[in-house]
Formats: sequence, structure tokens, C-alpha cells
Amino acid sequence: MGSPLDRLCVVLVATRNPLNLGAAARAMSNFGCPTLRVVRPYEASFRQARSAVGAAELLAKAEQFDSVAEAVADCALVVGTTAGKARTLQHPLKPLEKAALVMRRRLSSDRVALLFGSEKRGLSNQDMSHCHWLLRIPTRDAHASMNLGQAVAVCLYELVRLPKRIEKAPTRKPAVAADVERLTDLLGEALKASGYVRGDKSIEEDLRRMVLRLKLDETDSQLWLGMLRQILWKIRSAEKSAKA
Amino acid sequence: MGSPLDRLCVVLVATRNPLNLGAAARAMSNFGCPTLRVVRPYEASFRQARSAVGAAELLAKAEQFDSVAEAVADCALVVGTTAGKARTLQHPLKPLEKAALVMRRRLSSDRVALLFGSEKRGLSNQDMSHCHWLLRIPTRDAHASMNLGQAVAVCLYELVRLPKRIEKAPTRKPAVAADVERLTDLLGEALKASGYVRGDKSIEEDLRRMVLRLKLDETDSQLWLGMLRQILWKIRSAEKSAKA
Repeated sequence: MGSPLDRLCVVLVATRNPLNLGAAARAMSNFGCPTLRVVRPYEASFRQARSAVGAAELLAKAEQFDSVAEAVADCALVVGTTAGKARTLQHPLKPLEKAALVMRRRLSSDRVALLFGSEKRGLSNQDMSHCHWLLRIPTRDAHASMNLGQAVAVCLYELVRLPKRIEKAPTRKPAVAADVERLTDLLGEALKASGYVRGDKSIEEDLRRMVLRLKLDETDSQLWLGMLRQILWKIRSAEKSAKA
Repeated sequence: MGSPLDRLCVVLVATRNPLNLGAAARAMSNFGCPTLRVVRPYEASFRQARSAVGAAELLAKAEQFDSVAEAVADCALVVGTTAGKARTLQHPLKPLEKAALVMRRRLSSDRVALLFGSEKRGLSNQDMSHCHWLLRIPTRDAHASMNLGQAVAVCLYELVRLPKRIEKAPTRKPAVAADVERLTDLLGEALKASGYVRGDKSIEEDLRRMVLRLKLDETDSQLWLGMLRQILWKIRSAEKSAKA
């Protein structure tokens, strides 16, 4: 554990410009954050990004994923970035300074993911539904949207700026994102099987946000998974015997 | 006075890549810092920098100078940026957080210049001799040097992050850099005329640093200028009559 950011994953979603990927990697190297994950980049050639002075190794080791869910599966806290303010966000929004404090506390024991969306559109609602909450860099309302590489640099600076030792409140071991995802899926199936949700109406994003708000710990998330599996089995087997 | 950075001048010295100039301009627009000054850029075409999303106006208004002295002439505090640590710096070095606090206090009444050197070499010793002190962003020693646009973004973020009202100690009105420059020149001439400096030996940079360390206020700098002018006149007229 050399750097306070050893457990941070920077997750770049649908990045268009390989130069921005390179710039993000360089800032990560500058501030001692080794783990880069990339979801559906526009150009597979991103590993050769020219602007990654001193960060070639970090880029070469970057992992590529097809979905946000897979990229954050082992993370206990998932934070999205947004330039949005006026637009109706369905998530709690923290200013960077406050966000960094919470994240640093969590980084002392858990993996934390920090998501950045594409240059044009930022994170989609679907992407955001994987986030516990969002953070915002205090830019001017009149020109809020930052360059991707610069946004990464500013967030990482704020995270390392904080003193080495941050008091950590004794907490329960939180559920990782993969468990949240399983729970969301199971709950969705149970709601459909039970007739609560009719037809093909997708409530996946709403459910995911709802499950995240529970802030389950590891033990409770396993309990809930077990209960839902049992409920789902019961409904389905009852239906079968009714049809038989 | 909308933004706390209205009196800040970002001064980019000998920048090579127009994209970096554009990126710097974009960050300035994001954080509400309107004044960009450019000293000897490698490409005169910098105003068309493509990456300056939303910052075209700021780039178009950027002023171009042939020397650092001219670019900072109206500034009462001149701060340089460096990734250097081990290298022997002839200036006091403050971490960004501390530096930003001092700069924000001064920005409430004075023009402050923040200098960034070229991508390859940073600021030269000659450039630094115009600075009261230097600041450093807390990057890893193993990879200290940041991308220019990202360094500008991080510095400006730290400057706007601070609370709106920062107590300002009652201070005297400081001398602007143009007066420091006049004083340096006059002192140099007086030392040469007096025989303190022999031959063509250049002590300009040493003298400039020495004068900056005096931290003269406006009134005292005028007094010193008057005294030195008189001394110089005296020496020269004495020499003339000796020769006659």
C-alpha cells in the first residue's frame, strides 16, 4: 500500500478520443493511481495513445470491459462524475471536495470505482444507475463541461491532497457491486414472476438505484440473495404445479 | 468581480503544442479565469487550437509577449510552477495548497501571475528569476511532470475551491513587477558604473531575485528608484568631469 489511491479504479466509459485516454493515464501515473478500466472505448487502439508520457505501462495493463456492471463488480463504492446540475439527476450529488473525503475513507479498506462518461454525453442514465452517488467538480455554470483528461487530473489531485491518515469510522464490510447486481436481477425476476411488474416494462435502472440505497453490507446482501432465490423458486414451482 | 480569479493572469511560456494551449484555455474558462498571456509560443497558430471547446473567445483575447518581464509587468505577485524537487531551486517552494491560499488572499486586491513553462523543459532559470516563489503540485517523485493542460486545470481548481471570502491581512500596496524590473536594471547599471561588477558579467538574474526578496511596497519602490537614479547620475557625471 504505497499510495492512498492503490484501491481506486478509474473507469472510463465509451471514451471517444484515445488522446484523452492517454491523458487520463498520465494523470493517474502522476498521482499514483495504478488501475485503469475501460468500458466500450470507441477506438480499440487506445493503448497506443501518444499523450501518455510516462504512462505506457499503465495503459498496457488497462482492462477492457463490455459493461459498467463488469467493470465495477469488485468495487464496494461506485461514484459517477457529472457536469450536470440543472438537469434532473436521480442520484445524490456531492461537490468534489466532500466526495473525495468520503472516498478516501472508503479506500483505506475497500475498492472504489470512479466513473467518467464519454466526451460528448457524459455518463448515461444506465451507467449512472450503477453508482451510489455522483460528484461534481465546481466549474462555472456557464461552461461546466471539462476536458476528460483534465477532469481525471483534478479528481485525483483532490483525492491525494488529503492528509495521509484520515480517521475511518468503524464500518461493516459493504456489499460489492457484483452482489448488488445479482440482487437487482433477482428482485426484477421475482417482481415479474409475482406479477408486480407486467409485460416487458424495464425497471432495471430503478431497481438498481433502489438496491444501492439500501447500503447493504456483505452479510446482509448474502441473506437477501438467499431469500429472493427462495421466493423466486417458490413462485415458479407453484405456477408449475398450478399448470400441471 | 464575478469570479475570484478575475485578477489572475495565467502566463504560458514557450509552449510547444497548440493543443495544450487550447486545453489550458478550456480549463480557464471552466474555472472562471479570463486572462491568458502567452510568451514566445512555438506556433503562432495557437489561437486556432482545436481542443479549446468553449474557450475560443478566451484564446482570441490572449495577449502575446516577447518576454516574461512584459507579460507580468502589471502583476504584484509572480508565481512559477515546477515539477522540480531534488533539483536545486533558487526560490522558495510551496505546495499547491499553501500557495493557493496565499494567492487567493492577494487576488482580492492585486493582479497575480501564474507561470507555466514549456512541455519539455518547464520554466528556465531566467523565467524563474521573475518569480517571487514557486509552487509544486503534489505528484509522485517517480513521475512528477504533468501534462500542461492538466497542470493548469489542477492549479485553477485549487484556487477556486477555497471559500469565497478569505480573510485578508491588512497589507501595504505592493510594488508591481514592472517597478521591480526597473529597479533591477537601475541597480545593475549603478553596480557596473560603480565598478562593483566588472566586465560583461551578467548578474541580472541574481539581482532580480535579490530585489524580489525585499518585498517592497509601491511607495518604497518609487523611493528606491529615485535614489538609484540619482546615484547613477552622480557616478556618470563624476566620470565625465574626471575625463574632461
